[in-house]
Amino acid sequence: MKIVIATDSFKGSASSLEVAGYLENGIRRVLPDAEVTKLPLADGGEGTVDALVAALDGKYVECEVTGPLGEKVTAKFGLVGHRTAVIEMAEASGLPLIERKERDPFKTTTYGTGELIKAALDHGVDEILIGIGGSATNDGGAGMAQALGVSFKTSLNKEIGFGAKALENIQQIDISGLDPRLKATKITVLSDVTNPLCGETGASYIYGPQKGATQKDVQELDALLQRYGEQLESTLGKNIMNVEGAGAAGGLGAGLIAFCEAKLESGIEKVLDIIKLEDYVRGADLVITGEGKMDFQSVQGKAPIGVAKVAQKHHVPVVAVVGAEGYKIQEVYDHGIDLVVDIINKPMTLEEAMINVAPLTENAGGKIVRAYLLRKSVKEEEEKV
Amino acid sequence: MKIVIATDSFKGSASSLEVAGYLENGIRRVLPDAEVTKLPLADGGEGTVDALVAALDGKYVECEVTGPLGEKVTAKFGLVGHRTAVIEMAEASGLPLIERKERDPFKTTTYGTGELIKAALDHGVDEILIGIGGSATNDGGAGMAQALGVSFKTSLNKEIGFGAKALENIQQIDISGLDPRLKATKITVLSDVTNPLCGETGASYIYGPQKGATQKDVQELDALLQRYGEQLESTLGKNIMNVEGAGAAGGLGAGLIAFCEAKLESGIEKVLDIIKLEDYVRGADLVITGEGKMDFQSVQGKAPIGVAKVAQKHHVPVVAVVGAEGYKIQEVYDHGIDLVVDIINKPMTLEEAMINVAPLTENAGGKIVRAYLLRKSVKEEEEKV
Repeated sequence: MKIVIATDSFKGSASSLEVAGYLENGIRRVLPDAEVTKLPLADGGEGTVDALVAALDGKYVECEVTGPLGEKVTAKFGLVGHRTAVIEMAEASGLPLIERKERDPFKTTTYGTGELIKAALDHGVDEILIGIGGSATNDGGAGMAQALGVSFKTSLNKEIGFGAKALENIQQIDISGLDPRLKATKITVLSDVTNPLCGETGASYIYGPQKGATQKDVQELDALLQRYGEQLESTLGKNIMNVEGAGAAGGLGAGLIAFCEAKLESGIEKVLDIIKLEDYVRGADLVITGEGKMDFQSVQGKAPIGVAKVAQKHHVPVVAVVGAEGYKIQEVYDHGIDLVVDIINKPMTLEEAMINVAPLTENAGGKIVRAYLLRKSVKEEEEKV
Repeated sequence: MKIVIATDSFKGSASSLEVAGYLENGIRRVLPDAEVTKLPLADGGEGTVDALVAALDGKYVECEVTGPLGEKVTAKFGLVGHRTAVIEMAEASGLPLIERKERDPFKTTTYGTGELIKAALDHGVDEILIGIGGSATNDGGAGMAQALGVSFKTSLNKEIGFGAKALENIQQIDISGLDPRLKATKITVLSDVTNPLCGETGASYIYGPQKGATQKDVQELDALLQRYGEQLESTLGKNIMNVEGAGAAGGLGAGLIAFCEAKLESGIEKVLDIIKLEDYVRGADLVITGEGKMDFQSVQGKAPIGVAKVAQKHHVPVVAVVGAEGYKIQEVYDHGIDLVVDIINKPMTLEEAMINVAPLTENAGGKIVRAYLLRKSVKEEEEKV
């Protein structure tokens, strides 16, 4: 029996590959000789670098860059395949890098993300994949652009500082110093975010509050990005503000589109393409996907549904293993998932579930195989007839 | 698709037929046209009368009898099929009838159980099935025998009173008044208990403590039953004390063997026989069994394993639905269960699980069908080839 495992991580509890390992143990208890392929999965969010480095046997590069509040931080990115870099913006400019009380989207900068891109270029890559989840910033990618040689000048012809607040002082944008290597580099943003830069569905309104913005701050941040976006468009002579995803990561999407000719692609689809899921699924008997919590929102571009689509195309049954089922989970059954198996097997607290994630997931792995084999006896009987 | 549902109750939460109803709802969400047969299940314990009355479209008879402490209680029994009565001794002589602080196995009597048997005889039955779970008594069935006309006389030629303590005064046992209708009546004890009347595996040692006996009480109760048992054997001239099950229900087993020529049969097997499970399983596609909590102990004669045996004989897959998985549940997979599906689908308390037993069990019902259909797409592909 050939089984392909490609689950998302159980956030805060087990990585994608850990979940796969536990499932494999459970599978082997029932079918010791099963052929199990474990593919780490990610959708452009947290864990994307780890997943792709693991899947493609890549390597990590560490470098010191500028953190979201200007301090130095050590950030890593991945080098995979044939001259491709994988970056997560959160490594340099993410919320996890700052204390909750220090969150301030007026101050935070994407400068460090620009330094990561520069470091990748220094390694001679010709393609850069950028995951943009977990941003602490709302600077429209201005900091990123600064790190790559763009100059944002005040009316006194001085460089503006860092953060969204500084954007109000931009009088002129000078791209003459932009790193020339970018022209020969394909930059892809891994994102399922489709928000524009501004307005009520824009970066500030939708993602500002989780970065520390009050309702009043949000209006001010939105106005800052509005002015900045208009300057970008007039300077570069192209549509930027309303491109789908321009509002991703506090407008980093807009900056990448403006200065790096970045294309936005569905995170999960690009990852599935890179890890060659389809090649493994073709000829498999069963595909196992999953995520920490699955609910009706899971049908919107999240990793397991992406896996299910590929499996469905090849008529391979798909089971989703989950830490917990959420609201209206029934909807996933209309999107290619054939069966959801949760790891919780008796009343317990979330803490107990997280502590016991290994044995619980192992138990679920066994159940998934048993579910698959349920009709075996029937089938044998039918064959005899 | 033909599905047979025969689960035990989820004790304290949902009856056997309620569980089956919830499962059916979940099944119909996935397969609206499934042919679902719901068979109430019981193993001789609590719920046996309800299960058999429901399965065989029988009726209830209520009567006033003597409770375990001598008070009047209203007890019911069932009339099913062709002149058969089903009695649960706990209705007349059970622990649920008395407050915890009033538990006293020296005093409690099975007299009411004898009255129930008498009432059944009054209805002209020729077979009586007796479930003996939940007993509050330790009187060796002496009370039951008294109600049916046996006289236990003291040295002063007076009738002894009620309860185990009174047994020490027996000087002579007079069976001349025993209800003559018993001779023509087949009496079957539904029990998987194999304990003898006395000794360390006997009624007092094993079941005394849950009836309120201290360790010292247990020794005294055992000595009382030892003396009583020897008197039974010498009076009736047959082996009684070491017959398997003589120690069931505080020695009521011994009394029934002694005075009613009762035979002991496996509760679950007899019930499965009566509800004609095998007839339904033959030709079914899937059997669903289950119980509130399943663990390694479930393999010892409990209801779901009995169902699994029948299904296995006919090569029909068996899924067990459970409220919670317990210690070493893996063992049930070696005893005919193909898959265990628990109703808990996220971290929650036992109380939450019990409150939500209906939607949770319904959700599990859907999953069971989805598990069964998991290979459908594969099968369809194979058929095309």
